[in-house]
Amino acid sequence: MQAEIIAIGDEILIGQTVDTNSVFTAKHLNEMGIKVHLKRVIADQKEDIRFALNTLHPKTKLVFMTGGLGPTKDDITKHTLREYFGGELIFNQAVYDNVVKLFASFGREPKESNKTQAYVPSTCKVVMNDMGTAPGMHFEKDGVHFFSTPGVPYETEHLVRDKILPWVEQNLQPGTIYHKSLLTQGVPESYLAERLAAWEEKLPVEVKLAYLPSPGSVRLRLSGYGTNKEKSKALVEAQLPKMREILGRDVFGEDEDTLPLVLQKLCTKHEITVATSESCTGGNVARLLTEVPGASHYFEGSIVNYSNRVKQEWVGVKPETLKEHGAVSEATIRELAVGARTQFKTDYAVATSGVAGPSGGSPEKPVGTVWIAVASKHRVKAQVFRFGNNRLRNIQRASLMAMDILRREVQKFES
Amino acid sequence: MQAEIIAIGDEILIGQTVDTNSVFTAKHLNEMGIKVHLKRVIADQKEDIRFALNTLHPKTKLVFMTGGLGPTKDDITKHTLREYFGGELIFNQAVYDNVVKLFASFGREPKESNKTQAYVPSTCKVVMNDMGTAPGMHFEKDGVHFFSTPGVPYETEHLVRDKILPWVEQNLQPGTIYHKSLLTQGVPESYLAERLAAWEEKLPVEVKLAYLPSPGSVRLRLSGYGTNKEKSKALVEAQLPKMREILGRDVFGEDEDTLPLVLQKLCTKHEITVATSESCTGGNVARLLTEVPGASHYFEGSIVNYSNRVKQEWVGVKPETLKEHGAVSEATIRELAVGARTQFKTDYAVATSGVAGPSGGSPEKPVGTVWIAVASKHRVKAQVFRFGNNRLRNIQRASLMAMDILRREVQKFES
Repeated sequence: MQAEIIAIGDEILIGQTVDTNSVFTAKHLNEMGIKVHLKRVIADQKEDIRFALNTLHPKTKLVFMTGGLGPTKDDITKHTLREYFGGELIFNQAVYDNVVKLFASFGREPKESNKTQAYVPSTCKVVMNDMGTAPGMHFEKDGVHFFSTPGVPYETEHLVRDKILPWVEQNLQPGTIYHKSLLTQGVPESYLAERLAAWEEKLPVEVKLAYLPSPGSVRLRLSGYGTNKEKSKALVEAQLPKMREILGRDVFGEDEDTLPLVLQKLCTKHEITVATSESCTGGNVARLLTEVPGASHYFEGSIVNYSNRVKQEWVGVKPETLKEHGAVSEATIRELAVGARTQFKTDYAVATSGVAGPSGGSPEKPVGTVWIAVASKHRVKAQVFRFGNNRLRNIQRASLMAMDILRREVQKFES
Repeated sequence: MQAEIIAIGDEILIGQTVDTNSVFTAKHLNEMGIKVHLKRVIADQKEDIRFALNTLHPKTKLVFMTGGLGPTKDDITKHTLREYFGGELIFNQAVYDNVVKLFASFGREPKESNKTQAYVPSTCKVVMNDMGTAPGMHFEKDGVHFFSTPGVPYETEHLVRDKILPWVEQNLQPGTIYHKSLLTQGVPESYLAERLAAWEEKLPVEVKLAYLPSPGSVRLRLSGYGTNKEKSKALVEAQLPKMREILGRDVFGEDEDTLPLVLQKLCTKHEITVATSESCTGGNVARLLTEVPGASHYFEGSIVNYSNRVKQEWVGVKPETLKEHGAVSEATIRELAVGARTQFKTDYAVATSGVAGPSGGSPEKPVGTVWIAVASKHRVKAQVFRFGNNRLRNIQRASLMAMDILRREVQKFES
């Protein structure tokens, strides 16, 4: 079963707003085993909406339209849909009751303009919107189902997730897909592929493995296809222990996990405290860790030692170490990690120091050279990396790697 | 002149990748006065690319295609375009020389598969890609111009910005628009509008003002329309001094400026040094400042004092201050700023402390309460804000506000 999405709105076309509605809808459809094979963004204009409806992809069975339904914009989508599907606009009491109820919850009365929102094409079934005044609409023509939702993201999310997709699942019975991902960090795709090859070859035909790389990490997604959801799930879940056995500690999490989230759970569970000592990452590791609610349970703080003076005065790096080896060196990174751990009085401390670029590189320490160390009572683990030429990407990759080395050290010594 | 964008890639359709290429392209086209009136995302499949080409919007004069050109994915786009526009694949020596040159810069030799990238349809003009091995392509049919670029964002940005748009500007002469923006931070849109109203009313008819708000800041964009670029430019530029006079120090920059960039220039120019002392922002201010190359000229470091213990031991906040007023208070924020300035030995220090949420709020200090202070030899400027309930947005807004107060203090005392 294939679907297409039509997002209506000038603000998306000119690049001012990111179209999160269709990202959300596509993700959920995909999880149900429905493929989105076409997505369009079109202008808030009658003729453009009509043109889109007249050029549907021949394989399309489901159409999700979003936007162009608000009270101020003259409901271009609604009028165009009524023309396209026929019928006339009729007053829908249930929709109006919903409008009155929503206004009452803010202690207000609806305005006259809100009454027009309760007029819907007679050719549609209303999809009641519990989060807003404009209703969703459901049309059918030649076996193709059309769903129209307002452009406000949380209203669309509500209508799609709570109303439309359950209806689709129950009435159209798409094939089912069950997805489960294991997340890895810091191991190149080709290395993972080599280790998984023998196991992958023996996967049941209903189960497929996909490698989904992003900078520094690779998502390994197992998908089970079939007509029975429970069976697909069982087939996929049966493979997970084998995958985990092969990959060991290279797996840091599942599905929607992130390194900061995994560290928050892991460190809280083992009651350990952490501090960071950041040079080239400039506070980015601390920023990522503290974006997770509850980071204060284990995270004490960070010293961003951007200048050499701060490295000496705040973290206790010896002047002769800096003089002899430079700020980007194994000797300095060890002192940065150990010094931070001592002074923050934490169980673990992570340190970064590197040449983020674009300038500051030298023949033996080119742009992209980054040292990372993790200090604990057990040992100091120090590693060097050679990333690329892009400053922001170097900061991002160094930060991910620093969190991952911390995660590996904690798992090694605390689990 | 109207344009459409066709982005090719399953990863965008299933919502795994955000399609930044078309956002970038749409923004730049819009600034040139070219309207993007249709944007599609389609699957990596021959028949879908063909379907898109066969259902172009009748008003389309420019088509931007992106993606589907990499070496591994079998160049579906290239083969489909060759079929659509006719001709045959021919070896292009200049493209191959570029491949060899790029590989040489990594100290490698191209593989045999890279040779196939140098084969391009005889019906296209090559758009040389200085950032990658797959070339851009330019076709023309029935007065419509087609540009195809690889999916890698920085390659597409390079090709569109440096090669394609300059060609379009010179050869197709779209109507001219001249844009100039002034950027403000921390002042609500309605306040700005009130102050600008009288001046805006007297704007020449060819000049329009747009308010483009994003969290915490408002971009005020003046656009001059006409057929003569120099004339449009002169009309817009003539208004800038008046706007600046009305808004004074509420304007922090122009066009593509950001607060970190403005601070980098400002502090370097006045030879002042800066440190940050961050609680609720968790290192995010330091991270933003150090994303700008050359931040080391003025930025010394940051102490992320996430726990009260770190506030006392590292920054010298008095235990009785914390006990009496709490971490989120005027008394504490002043000590956090002054302590950091003293200990980092910098000219200025910025401090943040607040309840980012979702938990930790209380009736008198609800989630979203954030204190910010800037200390210098001149004074300590402390302000309190009440942001909202969203943790990430609170961190973001507090960070912007902290940088903006620093900017205002530096401009007040150093300029």
